[in-house]
Amino acid sequence: MSPDRTVLVGAVDVGGTSIKVATVRVGLRGGLAVSAAVHGEALSIAVPADPDEAVTEVLAAAARAGAGGAVAVGVVLPGVVDEARGVGVWSENIGWRDVDFRGLLRERLAVPVAIGHDVRAWGLAEVRAGAAHGARNAAIVPIGTGIAAALVVDGRLLSAAGFAGEIGHLQVAAHTECACGAVGCLEAVASAAGIARVYNQRTGQDMAGAAQVLAARAGGDPVAAEVWDEAVAHLATALAALATVTAPEVVVLGGGLARAGAALLDPLADHLVSRLRYTPVPRLVPAHFETAGGIVGAAMLAAEAR
Amino acid sequence: MSPDRTVLVGAVDVGGTSIKVATVRVGLRGGLAVSAAVHGEALSIAVPADPDEAVTEVLAAAARAGAGGAVAVGVVLPGVVDEARGVGVWSENIGWRDVDFRGLLRERLAVPVAIGHDVRAWGLAEVRAGAAHGARNAAIVPIGTGIAAALVVDGRLLSAAGFAGEIGHLQVAAHTECACGAVGCLEAVASAAGIARVYNQRTGQDMAGAAQVLAARAGGDPVAAEVWDEAVAHLATALAALATVTAPEVVVLGGGLARAGAALLDPLADHLVSRLRYTPVPRLVPAHFETAGGIVGAAMLAAEAR
Repeated sequence: MSPDRTVLVGAVDVGGTSIKVATVRVGLRGGLAVSAAVHGEALSIAVPADPDEAVTEVLAAAARAGAGGAVAVGVVLPGVVDEARGVGVWSENIGWRDVDFRGLLRERLAVPVAIGHDVRAWGLAEVRAGAAHGARNAAIVPIGTGIAAALVVDGRLLSAAGFAGEIGHLQVAAHTECACGAVGCLEAVASAAGIARVYNQRTGQDMAGAAQVLAARAGGDPVAAEVWDEAVAHLATALAALATVTAPEVVVLGGGLARAGAALLDPLADHLVSRLRYTPVPRLVPAHFETAGGIVGAAMLAAEAR
Repeated sequence: MSPDRTVLVGAVDVGGTSIKVATVRVGLRGGLAVSAAVHGEALSIAVPADPDEAVTEVLAAAARAGAGGAVAVGVVLPGVVDEARGVGVWSENIGWRDVDFRGLLRERLAVPVAIGHDVRAWGLAEVRAGAAHGARNAAIVPIGTGIAAALVVDGRLLSAAGFAGEIGHLQVAAHTECACGAVGCLEAVASAAGIARVYNQRTGQDMAGAAQVLAARAGGDPVAAEVWDEAVAHLATALAALATVTAPEVVVLGGGLARAGAALLDPLADHLVSRLRYTPVPRLVPAHFETAGGIVGAAMLAAEAR
């Protein structure tokens, strides 16, 4: 849908290692964001190791995003985020707990501020203007260092006080401890880092990520093939569970692992067809926004918050 | 909350074997149903084996429910129900497909008609006036012949075109074929019928339901104990998956199996505490409405549809 007007907003996407800042022109139609154009290259700032310093850096990034004519600022955060209260509840990677970002930013910024969750904001971008455009029931699943899902059901993004869609912690295996303390979480065995870790455990090698495991598989390494196939089966287990619970018409796959393309999507689709008999089998599609999803989603939240 | 007014409605709860009809006085507050009093004993009609005759019987039951001063009628159906369109999409037990109940009843009844799903209607009753009263995120799980869940997230009941919450078809085991054609569905191994079937397979006996297996376990039968413990572990697997995806604060357990009380709830709670590390552990509580949940939910839908 073509927008009936556009607004200029600031967008901040806080990741585990970097904070991205950009100015974005968002198209609105009937008050809903329907398009977004990022101005130039997003600025990237390293996340300090100290949680308090990380909060200070996020506040500075938001102030910078709010300068230069932006009419609102959107900030999306990793971990558990309660959008209704505007609070960063917890980030495993950064280490903060219960930070009232909305309150802190209201004191500092002259324009309205929207606080969101990085994955759910990306999900918003994919549903409004990306790969899940037009779907009333969808799941957007980034597979990178971590795994989570943004869930859209009956046309609405689910939050559940910030805990909806945390499929990275679905138990899919009987081995490998997760950072959360449980055993066999999807994130521990099928994330980019998890795949490398499982491969390294079996071979004594020291691969850094799933891309190398995939390359070794292409080169005929049988252990790499085994680890990859297991990871795909674990992802299928999690997506089948997700489909059974919230029945998405379409599942959007993004993040580093989705760049494997057909090597991931084709066997995953085969698994789902053979497993799901009662629940309709969702279409699997690659993400439209890739790494820009967080910035675009943050900008859409900001534009709608005005 | 006390109602600000009451209305008299007709309620029809269509199950796999019987159709229940009742007149219910529903209390409303601000347009939302907050209480319900069923008048006398609900009338029970057997469901005919022929799907077309079953439809005719449902229409007659709704007409009866709409007589005698009712200002609206609510009809809740089993299987896959698309509430938005008022269509019974599919019932495995009864055998119908794509029956436009709303359209058929609009032609026959002089009062407004609401079409709902039996389990989700029960969920509405538990959230509005029962065991999940006040929760913004809840799951209501009846465990009887079948297993499903009504899911409330961010205060809203999920539908997903009728497929939300079908946890009876989560794959939790590597054995036992389900009626849907898949292997190891929760319903196949942990429903009342499933537990008896697994026990009978292992012993060559012919128990009719989970109650007898539970009685045999109390009498020291080691196979009964093993089958029960496995079923509880499978239920825990499904509830852990459900909690990870939609993060309910409270899970309401109902249906025949929930009458096992502490023999079910205590080990189930232990499993969840040991499995869920990232997602908050939901409280497990027994249903308030038990078998009346469908009728009360149908009545609430009718009262709100006016």
